[in-house]
This record gives sequence, C-alpha cells and structure tokens, in this order.
Amino acid sequence: MKNGETPGLPAYPAERSRFNFGASPQDIVITGPLPPLPAILDEWTALQTPPSRVLIVCDEHTQPLARSITNPEESPFCVLEPGETRKDWSAVEQILRSAHNAGLDRDSLFIACGGGVVSDLAGFAASVYMRGVQLCVISTSLLGMVDAAVGGKTGCDLFGIKNLAGSFYPARLVYLPVDSLATLPPAEWKSGMAELIKTAILIHDDEDLFRLLQTGPDLSGQALRTALAQAVAYKGRIVEEDPRETKGRRILLNLGHSFGHALESSSGLGQISHGQAVAWGIARACELGESLGITPPQRARRILSLLKTYGYETAAPHPRMGNPARFMEALSRDKKNRRGKAVFIIPAATGAETLTDPPGEKTLQKICGILSYND
Amino acid sequence: MKNGETPGLPAYPAERSRFNFGASPQDIVITGPLPPLPAILDEWTALQTPPSRVLIVCDEHTQPLARSITNPEESPFCVLEPGETRKDWSAVEQILRSAHNAGLDRDSLFIACGGGVVSDLAGFAASVYMRGVQLCVISTSLLGMVDAAVGGKTGCDLFGIKNLAGSFYPARLVYLPVDSLATLPPAEWKSGMAELIKTAILIHDDEDLFRLLQTGPDLSGQALRTALAQAVAYKGRIVEEDPRETKGRRILLNLGHSFGHALESSSGLGQISHGQAVAWGIARACELGESLGITPPQRARRILSLLKTYGYETAAPHPRMGNPARFMEALSRDKKNRRGKAVFIIPAATGAETLTDPPGEKTLQKICGILSYND
Repeated sequence: MKNGETPGLPAYPAERSRFNFGASPQDIVITGPLPPLPAILDEWTALQTPPSRVLIVCDEHTQPLARSITNPEESPFCVLEPGETRKDWSAVEQILRSAHNAGLDRDSLFIACGGGVVSDLAGFAASVYMRGVQLCVISTSLLGMVDAAVGGKTGCDLFGIKNLAGSFYPARLVYLPVDSLATLPPAEWKSGMAELIKTAILIHDDEDLFRLLQTGPDLSGQALRTALAQAVAYKGRIVEEDPRETKGRRILLNLGHSFGHALESSSGLGQISHGQAVAWGIARACELGESLGITPPQRARRILSLLKTYGYETAAPHPRMGNPARFMEALSRDKKNRRGKAVFIIPAATGAETLTDPPGEKTLQKICGILSYND
Repeated sequence: MKNGETPGLPAYPAERSRFNFGASPQDIVITGPLPPLPAILDEWTALQTPPSRVLIVCDEHTQPLARSITNPEESPFCVLEPGETRKDWSAVEQILRSAHNAGLDRDSLFIACGGGVVSDLAGFAASVYMRGVQLCVISTSLLGMVDAAVGGKTGCDLFGIKNLAGSFYPARLVYLPVDSLATLPPAEWKSGMAELIKTAILIHDDEDLFRLLQTGPDLSGQALRTALAQAVAYKGRIVEEDPRETKGRRILLNLGHSFGHALESSSGLGQISHGQAVAWGIARACELGESLGITPPQRARRILSLLKTYGYETAAPHPRMGNPARFMEALSRDKKNRRGKAVFIIPAATGAETLTDPPGEKTLQKICGILSYND
C-alpha cells in the first residue's frame, strides 16, 4: 500500500506489510524520513492500546536521529554505548534501570532507535521488564532493516557467545526509515549488504533481488527500497511459517551463519563485522556444497562473484580468523546446533537446504583453510 | 485421575491435572515421593520430544532431594545459594553458565528442584537460554506448590524490586511431591500457608478449602493433598482465563500482594517471608474493604480470625515495616500498577474484586498504621 501525499501535511510515502508470527502480528513500514513521535504514537494507537509511558532506547550514534523525533524532556531516553562489544547483560540492565527510574509500568512502550544491536538489546529488555512491555523498533542500519528488525529475535551476548540469552519477542510496529541509511558509515553498509545478498541467494539467483544486487554496490533510491521490500517480504514469510525456528524453515536464514559466527567468535567479538563474517560463511557454504555435489559449480561461481563485487573476503582461511582450534571449537558449539550436531545451510540447485548429515572435522578444516586439501 | 499400584513397582499414587495457558499446556502431578529421574524423563517423553541433555537446578537446601533422583555424574547440577536475597541476575547467570559449560543446546531440559525462588530463577533462565529451552519444575515448598509452580511466571529481583525482570514461561510438567513438605522448616511452612489462605478467600469462605483450613494449622496427609489439589485447580483455571494478566482475572491472585510487596520491600528483601507479608497484606485489604463498604464486616472478621489461627501478624503498622515513607513509595510503585495507579484486590461479599477507584494516600497511610485514624 502506498500512501498518497496530503496537501499541507508532510509526505511520508510508506510501504507497509503485516506478518503474523504465531500469535504475534508485526507491521513493517518502509518509509523515507522518520515521522515525529506523535505520528508514531498515532500509528501505534491504531494497532494497540495507547502506552502509559514511552522510553526511547538509542545509542550514542543514533541519539541525533532519536532527538529528531522527540527530546528527553518529553520522553525519557536511554543512551547505550554503541557496538557489538557492548551487547551484554549490563546494557540490558541499563535499559531496565532507565525504565525503572522513569517509573514505567507494564503498559509502557519501549521504542528502540538504532541498528541490530540496539533493537536486540531493547527488544530483550522489553520482553523481560515486568514480564513484558510493548515494543516498537526504528531500524536505522541496513543490517538491522534486513535482519534484526524483522521477526522478533532479541538477545544479548554472554560468556563471549553471541545472543546466548534472548527471547522471541516481535515488535508490534517496525519502521525502516531509508533516509537514515544516507549517513551510514561504509563499514556498516557493507555489513548489512551481506544479509541482503544472503536473502537473494535464498530466494534464488533467477529472481529480481539477486539480479538487482548484481547491478553493483551503489544501491540507492527506489532500487534500495525495492531490495529492502523484497528482503522483508521473504524473511517475514519464512518467519510466519516457523516463528520459533522449530520447523526447519527459519533455520534457512542461517545460511553463512555457522561459519560466520565461528569466525566472529574466534576473531574476538566486534573484530569482524557480522556481515563480513556472514559473507565469508556463505563462501564456505558454497565450497562445502560444491564438494558434496549439492551446490552446482556455476551457482557457486555466481554467488562468489557477487560477494567479490561487494568487496567481501571469500578465501580461506580468513586473515583474521585467529586461533584455528578456537575457531573449530566455536563452530562445534554454535547456538544453532541440534542434539550436538552443527547445522549447515547449503546453496542448492534452487534456494538452499539443510545438510542432514554434517561433515566430519577434517572436511570442515579443509573448507575453512585450516588443513590443506592435500592433508 | 489416580494411578493404581502395579505389583513389583514402587507406588507413586498421583493426582494429575492439565491446564492450557494460551498456547502452553501444563501438566501438574501431585505425588507423594518423587520418582527417580528416568521415570520423570519417561513422563516427559510422553508429553514432549525427549531432551538432548538435562540440567538440574537446585539450591543448597534442596540438593539432597535432587541427588535422590539423580547425581551430578549422570546429569550436570547447578546449585544456587538459597534464599530470596540471592534471587538476582547473578543467580540467573550462574544457571546460564552451568548450562553453557555443560554444553547444553536448545533441545535441552532444565529441571528446577526447589521452592519458588529456585523455580522462578530456573524458569527465567530456561526462557532466555538460547531463546528458550524446555522446563520441568519439581516444587519442594508449600509456597512453591501453591503459587510459583503453577501458571508460568518466572523472574528475578532487580534494583531491590521483586521480579522486576522475568517472563511468562510455563513449565510443561510440574511435580508437587507432598512428601518433601515433611521436612519443611516451620517458617517456610508458614510462608506457604498464607498463599493457601489467600486462595481459600478467593474461592470463598463457604467452600471446602476455607473450611478445611479453619480446622487448624496441622494440615497433613490426605487433607493437605486435598487442599493442594483445590488450590492448584483454582489457580490453574484463573491462569487459563487470563494467562498474561491482561484481562482482569489473574490480577485477583494478587490479593494481599500490593501491601505485602511494599512491606517486603520496605523491611528489606528477605527480612519478612513472602507469606507473612501477604498475610499482613490480606488483613490490610480487609480493613480497606471494610472502610469502603465492600468487605462485609463478618467476612473480614472470619478472614482475620483464620489468619490469626495460623499465627500471622495482622495489626498495623507491621513491627518490621521500616521507614514508612519507603513503604508508601514502594506501595505507589508496585509492579502491578496500571497507568500510574496502584491496583488493590479486596475481599467482597463473595470472592474478591479489583478496586476500580484507588484510595488516596491518607486513607492508605491509615490502613497501614502510618497515620492514626484521628489524623
């Protein structure tokens, strides 16, 4: 649905979609600029009971954007330190303390304004504060828009493990204000693009999104909005089919993530961006898939070529892998493991599939450049 | 349903009930002794997919009971420090660390073995570990059996506020092994009895449970099991009607709790048992209800008399209230408050009702013995 412009009112042309994740509906609004808080609350009130109070959760980078919609005199702010290395329980506790100090009750609303780290932390805090308050997410990074904002996974890192603690808690309303991407640092842009490429691979190479991405890295304007809309539609549908990752569908979104998480972990959390790790992980999944006869060679080449177009490291071992033993240990303990076995998603002739019979340690070491193929 | 005895097998005559809390079923088994772990896992597997691994969560007091069903060589144990004062995030983190160190994945099962503090903490940890693992609760205290074990509220204290962080996460299977109450310290017994009395008031004075409790404090054997079964049936039904406390039904279970929580908070967490605080809170609710013409005087007398039979402090101010200003502050910030207003549950002509128009500060100060009625 596209909103028309109304004379005398600011124009917020928006694309809106609604998903149902189990019993939890989620409305996602792709917009240009972000509406001011009163307009957001009007939108909210059309969906849910009006909140008693609002807490704005942002980080030092997104605070200016948050201040463009309201100010701390109107609504209490919780300003987090930015970055993946701050994504721990102490940040969750900081949000809970801000809510408590501001006297928020269980009819309150947390509005997360930031990238995936902010929305994961604020979402987790919202899911546990007084056993759950309302949640709205304003996603300000490409990675957040394509991945974290859609579908309701929340979490914080613990004991050096990404998202070891967390919940399934979909925000009722999610804004993707594309204009905020104009000021996104290149490294952040690159991090998000890997998730967009992942989605394109899952949808399939013949489809619009993959072709759109093949036109090159300078995605902007309507092309960017189209890409976002397609990625959101795909992820939303997958999560609708399998909200809690128990039915073998949502796990597909994990393409590149088993290898990627292990790389993030062995290199030290925050050393390599999530997207760079996922891109490298996708390259590994292609190599594994090709070696097993699952990924057609020409498809693997097409995917690697796209990754290289966007400047991702695709060779193994990754130059910042760190200790190979630590990498293998992290790979064997990935959170997605089921019953002690690592789960690998592999590009297939169409889309991708789950490897039912995980490869042996030596094969994985070869795929990841830890052992030579001659060993 | 009563299980018959099978010759050659140990007898675990059990009363079983099943509730549906939203999409979450919960089976509750009232039994004498606790079955050994293999029998528990058989029971589990009849309800759910078998777990990949099991973590036993107990405290130093319930460790012997936990060791009577299995041992740390068979299943990893997490042994918490006992008591309400240890019910904080660091205890939740201790459980998460034990699970992580033991290599538990998301198909694992946490078995909580202890009173309400242990089951609240283990339940909270289970709800967030890898975004949620399976949960079985063995409730070993009267308070736990009557209150915490049924209905799926979990939580930990934060910033001195009881259960400020938590979740709704019903255990799929709950055991109430009545034999474990035989060794319950008198203070623990007294703490649980207040919740049983609260339930009897909510069901109503003419009914079996209230009459049973009027026979005096030496409840044991079949009378105790009958009382437990009635309390469980009542709470289960209320939670079925209103699993997330949004429909004005579950809030009734809060009778005595607004005053009680404030007393627990102002006296210092852990200084007064939850049950003693709730009993005193029920007396306050009667006094408030009588002053407003909601609680019939003869009903208030009957309730106060029952509370005194069990040795509870019913007079205001409570001798261990501490700073009256802190008490009033805690009362005004109770977690159950909705839109800035405290919620009071008041015994009515039948059962209890929510006070729609909260009383003023001075009235509350008089009810709580902070101001004299002549002021």
